[in-house]
Amino acid sequence: MNRIEAHHIDDLALGSVFLATGGGGDPHLNRIIAIETLKARGPVEILLPEELDDDAFVVPVGSVGAPTVSLELLPSMDEPRRTLEAFEKQVGRRADAVASFEIGGGNSLVPLVAAAGRGIPVVNGDGMGRAYPEAQMMTYAISGVRPTPALAFDYAGNTALFSTQSTEVYEYHIRSFAAAAGGMITVAEHAMSGAQLKQAVIPGTLSFTVELGQVLRENRGPAADILDPLKAIFEPSIYGEVRHLFSGKVIDKSTRIIGGYDIGEATLEDFDDPGQTLCLNIKNEYLLARTGDRVVASVPDLIVTVDHETSTPINCERLRYGQRVTVFAVGCPDFYRSPEALRVVSPRSFGFDLDYVPLEDIES
Amino acid sequence: MNRIEAHHIDDLALGSVFLATGGGGDPHLNRIIAIETLKARGPVEILLPEELDDDAFVVPVGSVGAPTVSLELLPSMDEPRRTLEAFEKQVGRRADAVASFEIGGGNSLVPLVAAAGRGIPVVNGDGMGRAYPEAQMMTYAISGVRPTPALAFDYAGNTALFSTQSTEVYEYHIRSFAAAAGGMITVAEHAMSGAQLKQAVIPGTLSFTVELGQVLRENRGPAADILDPLKAIFEPSIYGEVRHLFSGKVIDKSTRIIGGYDIGEATLEDFDDPGQTLCLNIKNEYLLARTGDRVVASVPDLIVTVDHETSTPINCERLRYGQRVTVFAVGCPDFYRSPEALRVVSPRSFGFDLDYVPLEDIES
Repeated sequence: MNRIEAHHIDDLALGSVFLATGGGGDPHLNRIIAIETLKARGPVEILLPEELDDDAFVVPVGSVGAPTVSLELLPSMDEPRRTLEAFEKQVGRRADAVASFEIGGGNSLVPLVAAAGRGIPVVNGDGMGRAYPEAQMMTYAISGVRPTPALAFDYAGNTALFSTQSTEVYEYHIRSFAAAAGGMITVAEHAMSGAQLKQAVIPGTLSFTVELGQVLRENRGPAADILDPLKAIFEPSIYGEVRHLFSGKVIDKSTRIIGGYDIGEATLEDFDDPGQTLCLNIKNEYLLARTGDRVVASVPDLIVTVDHETSTPINCERLRYGQRVTVFAVGCPDFYRSPEALRVVSPRSFGFDLDYVPLEDIES
Repeated sequence: MNRIEAHHIDDLALGSVFLATGGGGDPHLNRIIAIETLKARGPVEILLPEELDDDAFVVPVGSVGAPTVSLELLPSMDEPRRTLEAFEKQVGRRADAVASFEIGGGNSLVPLVAAAGRGIPVVNGDGMGRAYPEAQMMTYAISGVRPTPALAFDYAGNTALFSTQSTEVYEYHIRSFAAAAGGMITVAEHAMSGAQLKQAVIPGTLSFTVELGQVLRENRGPAADILDPLKAIFEPSIYGEVRHLFSGKVIDKSTRIIGGYDIGEATLEDFDDPGQTLCLNIKNEYLLARTGDRVVASVPDLIVTVDHETSTPINCERLRYGQRVTVFAVGCPDFYRSPEALRVVSPRSFGFDLDYVPLEDIES
């Protein structure tokens, strides 16, 4: 696969919600924008990391904000391109390619819209392999790419250009600007060379997500029947094991927008046995899945909620009381199992008094 | 008076707290920094607005944040100069002079430190004639000077460059950055030409504040004895009437940092008659003074609290239960009595269901 065309976008959006592990921002509006942009401007070339020149200038572009806001604050057609161009003007250099913060959710699509607008390629890969709530959790940051200069662009065309050494501090500044500017902004940040990208990216996730979306589309139907097709695509990939965690009804879900994040939890109850429940902790994404005191899956592994009858993945901000859902867990790419990565993405880094246990080491 | 020397700084700081009408940020630390800077680098030339060339490039520099933070977050010696230089680098033009956001509180001193560091003059005048809590309340904004490009500099040297059309939106962005960056930042904003400044500034306030500080120093003693010397300096000035409002003990004071501002109120009780009270509403500065339902002074006129025994002005964040104080009201410069100014500084623009009544029209 060497380009993304308008007819790929539905599968890409569908697959991206699966990998978003509850967060990432609803891709619905970005899906419409991406289809219209690619129809108008033609396909976008996608390049595997090794196809980039070492001295290429690669600029990640994406949205930052609380996912709930993605349901209401309408993005404009040209915001990703205008963000990229404003960034290029500030740094005085044209981008050779656009990269994705995260393949999960709407940020799988925003880079395509920016790249189509500018007529440049997008990297086939991303900085998370899923979605995470904070910038310092990106592979780019963990690999030592500087977060700034970073340019933020709001719905009204106001901009802010940040300069900060630490990605943790940068995350705090950009999150606060997002909250002040209506809850959702478009950002160009963590710009890097092709050589840096090759060390820092989760490769191949853009084409993988299109294929995953195709699997979900072709196997639309009861969640019990999708496990085998999911295993067939995930097990040979960088992700590995897929596991059924729970099936049941949403009996409680509560999130609040705190400090620019959606924070809260959801509880599911077994269809037949009200004593059996699964509790999901949320910070934009699902972080922990627990039955009673027992952790059955945790960040950085992926926790994915799908509709029980159709297997359509459901992002957290669309999860509602009474929905019948199935929850899967999926292993994470090896990158996130290194000590450097676990320092920022383990349950402990989210405030839980728990060490990370890889999915395949948890008794199922 | 055509320059500020190190030996003027104590009087300037003292006078600035009087004009700060409770807010403006405690000048204590900036006073020490200004004295050391002027001792090391020599006096700073001050220019009346009419002495500036029409095409001079004038850059206001000052602190933005909640005044309570000014008691704890230590400013560094070179932050004002580094802020100005980072701004100059971004806009590609050197400043010919520095101006002050507000003569009230610490922002009377920050421009001197920036100007001394760069070896350029400071405008004898300011953008408020007192202190107000928000950027759109500055004469510069009211006169149509664009707020951005604006460069914010935090205690760790992180920066953010804002671009926004409206000062109201800019205020929201810069306030949110201040809150994210520790509560207090240094900012260069509302840059303008000499011609614009001449239309937009409250003139002469820098030298006036030194003289006011001298009056307070030379008349240190009971507040009852300071009224005549205050009248002697204010009545022939752009301010006009000075009036004694109340003398009593602080029996209640409560402020919280809400959205980056100090917000709350204080209540004073007459020394002899507990039934007589004065209530002060606060948003960084004193906004309203009321005895029962009766408004006895309101923004944009100045409400000033001084120590009852020494007449030393007390800024709001230092006001404490049990303090014995006297409250004066002072008229505001004519600029703030225009309909354009009252749109942003009347009691109504702070959410009170009250029209502004000039001090001299209120029965004393």
